[in-house]
Amino acid sequence: MKILVVGLGLIGGSLCKALKKYTYHTVVGCDLNHDIENAALRDVALDEVFDGNYNGYDLIIAALFPEATERFFRDHASEISKNTLITDVCGIKGAFSERMKNIAETNGLRYVGIHPMAGKEFGGYYNSTADLFVKANFIIAPFEDSREEDTELLRKLASEVGAGKIVVTTPENHDKMIAYTSQLAHIVSSAYVKSPELGLECGFSGGSFQDMTRIATMNERMWTDLFMQNKENLQYELDTLIKNLLKYSDALKNSDADTMRALIAEGRELKEENLRHRVGQPN
Amino acid sequence: MKILVVGLGLIGGSLCKALKKYTYHTVVGCDLNHDIENAALRDVALDEVFDGNYNGYDLIIAALFPEATERFFRDHASEISKNTLITDVCGIKGAFSERMKNIAETNGLRYVGIHPMAGKEFGGYYNSTADLFVKANFIIAPFEDSREEDTELLRKLASEVGAGKIVVTTPENHDKMIAYTSQLAHIVSSAYVKSPELGLECGFSGGSFQDMTRIATMNERMWTDLFMQNKENLQYELDTLIKNLLKYSDALKNSDADTMRALIAEGRELKEENLRHRVGQPN
Repeated sequence: MKILVVGLGLIGGSLCKALKKYTYHTVVGCDLNHDIENAALRDVALDEVFDGNYNGYDLIIAALFPEATERFFRDHASEISKNTLITDVCGIKGAFSERMKNIAETNGLRYVGIHPMAGKEFGGYYNSTADLFVKANFIIAPFEDSREEDTELLRKLASEVGAGKIVVTTPENHDKMIAYTSQLAHIVSSAYVKSPELGLECGFSGGSFQDMTRIATMNERMWTDLFMQNKENLQYELDTLIKNLLKYSDALKNSDADTMRALIAEGRELKEENLRHRVGQPN
Repeated sequence: MKILVVGLGLIGGSLCKALKKYTYHTVVGCDLNHDIENAALRDVALDEVFDGNYNGYDLIIAALFPEATERFFRDHASEISKNTLITDVCGIKGAFSERMKNIAETNGLRYVGIHPMAGKEFGGYYNSTADLFVKANFIIAPFEDSREEDTELLRKLASEVGAGKIVVTTPENHDKMIAYTSQLAHIVSSAYVKSPELGLECGFSGGSFQDMTRIATMNERMWTDLFMQNKENLQYELDTLIKNLLKYSDALKNSDADTMRALIAEGRELKEENLRHRVGQPN
């Protein structure tokens, strides 16, 4: 296949590196920053830099923020060869994917979104790596009327770059699940660092503090965009968490050790059950 | 030195293994479970199993839950050679340490508490390892009138088993900091797994979900004990977090992207500042 990757950030750059490392596909890339295009060429993350002609690709992957993804396809869909499969890697699907599908179909293209569940707390090409997707979960979110062969092509691609569990689900279910597994975690991490004790923690913390706060470095533009496009699901998860946290707070307030013990035991049992389901799933 | 380690769980077992691996101290250990004593002997984690005679030790380390630690010293302090230094590894100091100091002084012993900031999401001797403390933070919590030489002895021991940053602080400050860096993280993790979406997350999660929920497997007896002994500090941290989470919730409710962006940016800046302070600190 001839693949165009638009945007050579953490995900786009890693995809290019992985495709070059693990497959024989031809990888073409572009980035607004030409220094990064040159770096990617030097790193042999690309076969060539994009020359401005959108014809002749089997797959075009936009690895941009949601808003930029939509703008890119709105601006260029008419220049792409008919019947090309286009995709995006955004952490939002739902209504966003509907709009992408409309752009695609209006221009005689096909669209199925993907979401590799891989990332790092710092973005950008210079943090990208060929092994970012190895053993990571990988979500493909076709519509009911998407072609089976498109989903299969993306599933094969995910498998080629090393993905662990590959899940095919609806755009709506993607958003519901991601609100809990990813977006809520980012909000918690961001809120966690706002204690007055943060400035004094050095020397007083173990692995759990690092785990809780690692992703607080997220990019506010991208994540605000993602949160706002998934408002209802995220609101539900956040309010559920707050409601649960208040139970622990009440147990403390009432010096109620029995309730506290029951709350912790319930969490332990749920996590143990969760771990049993995940045997063989490293992520 | 001749050191007695009472309780061969994750921390006690790891301490014995580390002392045998990295030092020439004589290590004696005991556990209520004799199979574990025998396993520790076979693993060369001990020079010998405790014979019931508390005389002749330079240092006695209780590696037990807080309540059991207190009971152990109450029951046996009178049998220990006068002037022996005793310590504990509990994640609580404050009033607990006051009581320990009283037991010690009543019996002609000396007491200074320690708290190695190392652990795993699963406890017990069979998860213990000689390298548990390598590069970990290590807190020593003497009183104002504790002898400098006792603190120095414990500092040297921490250094011998590989500790990274070794912090000497008051028992009160220990509890204030630990409420934020450790106890709050455990409550969040425990509450995080209580979403109805938990049972469906397999395949939909990345590293952030794992980070958030790893420690939800904590032991409810030990942590209830720790939480209840540090109620005020923990309540403050938990309520601060809930208050901050509500700001994100309100921004969602009001579809207020500007406020959301500002909240995330504030968190990012705080975490970046925190990381700058931590250069060279792996934990």
